[in-house]
Amino acid sequence: MPSRRYILTLSCPDRVGIVAAVSGFLAEHKGWIVEAHHHADPEAQRFFMRQEVLTDSLPFGMDEFRRRFSAIAAKFGMDWRLSDTGVLKRVVIMVGKQTHCLDDLLYRWRSGEMPFELKAVISNHEDSREFVEFHRVRFEHVAMEAGQREEGLGKIAVLLEKHAPDVIVLARFMQILPARICAKYPYRILNIHHSFLPSFVGAKPYHQAYARGVKFVGATCHYVTAQLDDGPIIEQDAFRTNHAHSIEELMRIGRDIEKTVLARGLRYHLEDRVLMNGSKTVVFA
Amino acid sequence: MPSRRYILTLSCPDRVGIVAAVSGFLAEHKGWIVEAHHHADPEAQRFFMRQEVLTDSLPFGMDEFRRRFSAIAAKFGMDWRLSDTGVLKRVVIMVGKQTHCLDDLLYRWRSGEMPFELKAVISNHEDSREFVEFHRVRFEHVAMEAGQREEGLGKIAVLLEKHAPDVIVLARFMQILPARICAKYPYRILNIHHSFLPSFVGAKPYHQAYARGVKFVGATCHYVTAQLDDGPIIEQDAFRTNHAHSIEELMRIGRDIEKTVLARGLRYHLEDRVLMNGSKTVVFA
Amino acid sequence: MPSRRYILTLSCPDRVGIVAAVSGFLAEHKGWIVEAHHHADPEAQRFFMRQEVLTDSLPFGMDEFRRRFSAIAAKFGMDWRLSDTGVLKRVVIMVGKQTHCLDDLLYRWRSGEMPFELKAVISNHEDSREFVEFHRVRFEHVAMEAGQREEGLGKIAVLLEKHAPDVIVLARFMQILPARICAKYPYRILNIHHSFLPSFVGAKPYHQAYARGVKFVGATCHYVTAQLDDGPIIEQDAFRTNHAHSIEELMRIGRDIEKTVLARGLRYHLEDRVLMNGSKTVVFA
Amino acid sequence: MPSRRYILTLSCPDRVGIVAAVSGFLAEHKGWIVEAHHHADPEAQRFFMRQEVLTDSLPFGMDEFRRRFSAIAAKFGMDWRLSDTGVLKRVVIMVGKQTHCLDDLLYRWRSGEMPFELKAVISNHEDSREFVEFHRVRFEHVAMEAGQREEGLGKIAVLLEKHAPDVIVLARFMQILPARICAKYPYRILNIHHSFLPSFVGAKPYHQAYARGVKFVGATCHYVTAQLDDGPIIEQDAFRTNHAHSIEELMRIGRDIEKTVLARGLRYHLEDRVLMNGSKTVVFA
Repeated sequence: MPSRRYILTLSCPDRVGIVAAVSGFLAEHKGWIVEAHHHADPEAQRFFMRQEVLTDSLPFGMDEFRRRFSAIAAKFGMDWRLSDTGVLKRVVIMVGKQTHCLDDLLYRWRSGEMPFELKAVISNHEDSREFVEFHRVRFEHVAMEAGQREEGLGKIAVLLEKHAPDVIVLARFMQILPARICAKYPYRILNIHHSFLPSFVGAKPYHQAYARGVKFVGATCHYVTAQLDDGPIIEQDAFRTNHAHSIEELMRIGRDIEKTVLARGLRYHLEDRVLMNGSKTVVFA
Repeated sequence: MPSRRYILTLSCPDRVGIVAAVSGFLAEHKGWIVEAHHHADPEAQRFFMRQEVLTDSLPFGMDEFRRRFSAIAAKFGMDWRLSDTGVLKRVVIMVGKQTHCLDDLLYRWRSGEMPFELKAVISNHEDSREFVEFHRVRFEHVAMEAGQREEGLGKIAVLLEKHAPDVIVLARFMQILPARICAKYPYRILNIHHSFLPSFVGAKPYHQAYARGVKFVGATCHYVTAQLDDGPIIEQDAFRTNHAHSIEELMRIGRDIEKTVLARGLRYHLEDRVLMNGSKTVVFA
Repeated sequence: MPSRRYILTLSCPDRVGIVAAVSGFLAEHKGWIVEAHHHADPEAQRFFMRQEVLTDSLPFGMDEFRRRFSAIAAKFGMDWRLSDTGVLKRVVIMVGKQTHCLDDLLYRWRSGEMPFELKAVISNHEDSREFVEFHRVRFEHVAMEAGQREEGLGKIAVLLEKHAPDVIVLARFMQILPARICAKYPYRILNIHHSFLPSFVGAKPYHQAYARGVKFVGATCHYVTAQLDDGPIIEQDAFRTNHAHSIEELMRIGRDIEKTVLARGLRYHLEDRVLMNGSKTVVFA
Repeated sequence: MPSRRYILTLSCPDRVGIVAAVSGFLAEHKGWIVEAHHHADPEAQRFFMRQEVLTDSLPFGMDEFRRRFSAIAAKFGMDWRLSDTGVLKRVVIMVGKQTHCLDDLLYRWRSGEMPFELKAVISNHEDSREFVEFHRVRFEHVAMEAGQREEGLGKIAVLLEKHAPDVIVLARFMQILPARICAKYPYRILNIHHSFLPSFVGAKPYHQAYARGVKFVGATCHYVTAQLDDGPIIEQDAFRTNHAHSIEELMRIGRDIEKTVLARGLRYHLEDRVLMNGSKTVVFA
């Protein structure tokens, strides 16, 4: 078991003295830093930072940390957040007929590799009910067939309201979420798209890739925004292909890439490693 | 020194008996096959083959091989070609201000790693003249500045006519060839595009990739067609990037990928490993 | 569902006429070849071939195929094998305390991605019983603690005898099989070793890799022979690491590589894509 | 042209307050940090840091920087170094008959991609003289044939003494340097070994890899110590291979990996990105 830590993430206009102020504050209170990352974006003239500090090394808790730090934050105009690795994030997974990403995340969750609180799995197919319920996890079926889509989306909105997730994972959900839901969970909905974005936006990307004759095929984990497949990219990967691969083989090999790319993206998010820089991400991996 | 070989490449509608007919023909004449590749495309219902046969193992030369094989080719409706590794292909390299791909190809050529007959290097910049001429290779400068472009393109057409290349390599030439030149050398003009096509077509792909915040950046070697960056893809590769890479660093790392992708694509072409399947390539690597 | 196929694999001393004989035989009987691979090893002067033929295209079944083909096989001195994709291979998986490879294979099996007949899971730990039995698969616990090892190995030998597996998969079993068991299933026991062999043979390879400070860490799927971690390599892969990765992180990232490397190796084996060439493999992937 | 920078690298026993002290010092003098890296090794209980500071942002030069910083360094028991990107490092390249790494480094040097002061190229073969001298770089031939080896090594020692290199690059030199030379330039001699160390130490690694039947082949850039191929690893990479690759093809593909691995390792070294942690490196890439 790794020790409990506070994770401080922040961004602010770049100037002299930010690191000195933050590390001075931590040092003053004997905060033991286990991991630290900085990034200065010279174009945006913005500075980004993530600090992992042993909870036990500090003489105070979250509230006092927040109270004391807010003076520094105000001085530098910081967007900042403090989280506690001892408090698991609440997750809802949404899935369609293809369950490889769901099954992969369930393995990582039940084995303890990836700690989070799994509130529910929502699907428009019954296929994964038995497997999800084996894990003693709530399975919610929402019909999304033609004629039921509007009602289904309403039901999803209610379920999300109820489970109040910190993160929503679209693990090959294959339904487009309406703008009103996207807007409600900014940078808190993760999607896995089965192409190397911005190549092959939209439907059937493996078919598109096959038709174009590309020599690598990839997958992309990104935040969902109202514009399809256009959200900030968190993680990508790709595999070499050639003329001998059929579309079915691209799909088979692609599943392995989708699983690992989504799992990496989700881990970065759960561990507060992803900071926003305009429409791009800073990922302190 | 590898032994001299005949390379037979062909494609035809798929049916029973193609391999039997071709390998029967070769076996009958004691042809020693050193390398063989097949591909059947079930969608296009087309069959592709490449055979490398030791020249010395056959009792006849190219002309007789062609004469005898044409009966089989006619029976199966083959598109086919026979080449001789003992006859070097004629190459013209065209280059702009950035010379990393040119310099890399010159290394492979002078070291004997990649055997071809280098007829000329054409450039709209004088920068690489000294280095090219050190290799005792003809350097042709063609002015392409504003107002000189049309004249320059005419001069290029004449130079190509004169050097009669089997292959034209656009090694970061950065000028768009007119349709009339593209049409004259079908599947014989190779370009290196510094993005992972179909992502980031056109100008300044590294800037586009930086702006989109992708996590991998790539390069593509493709045949040039009249439509920009849309020709059949021969080879691609990519490298992992992150928020910390500036555009300059993407360019620096990208150069290494561009060099190897172009060199691999050119090698495949020179060794007759690339067959056309509609707008896609079959690469028997 | 892909169509049923016969898979013919063979190796023999290299000479003129092998392909002609085999493809002539298939063509004569209207055999429709869906996939074909050849390899000639000029050092060993040995030839290797794999042919996938549509069962329905042939006028006879396995026995008649075997009977008729044996004349050709005898003429060329072939080691050969004919298998039928309609007959699933019998698999026994053996696993220790770490279940990531087991869980991954169970996903591929239950989803139909990787078709085989799963006879039993054998483990010296009870941890995975519930998950295995959820799949309605037989779980066999064999105690292997100090003092029980000899008895345990005896019980394993009996279980293997009973389940008569075509393939035994050591999915992080962490116990060394005795030579008598290894010898009984030549090239039929697959192991996943969590290092990039031949680096870091034996115990705790991630610790060894960490101590040496390598910049890539890998995994190897190989056939088990009597000599530890020295059997023929079927498949490998690796991931980039750096000074910031702790041993625990190497283990975490390594699990993903182990899973895919073992799954790929097993798929190659199940699909008869692995041929032996002395102590090396020819993998027609 | 990137702006001139001071690079501060240090390591010391880990404790609270190091970052605060260093960043406080820099902030106090208005030092503008362009890039910063930290690493805490919990096993060695040691802390590592690299800071890149704009020279122009500081009110003093190197000497004054050193004088003022030495108080902090003493307090924390730091091993530390300050360098100036405006002062190019002195490099001597040593090469054997194979010149791909030399030619690659010469490209990077003459194009300005990799700035350093190239004092001389030393070789026991005349082959690369013409190409080196084209670059107006001093070429020193040292005979190393049987009977001349001792004398040759003496001559090399004298040449190194004369050129006083900051870094010596063994770019496929293929001769073992005696312990007395290794000891004189600790962590200042870089070698490229054409295998994925610790696999295939010593002579003919591609032959060893071919014989073992591995599925990836790699290259390693490491510091030279008295023990063959056992020095601290700076950078590695690898490429996928299979049964179809001959030893000659492994060598050909390997050259591209060797070039990029050595170039990356050398760049890390020239930019003071490599810190020593016992027998391992911390590379702030």
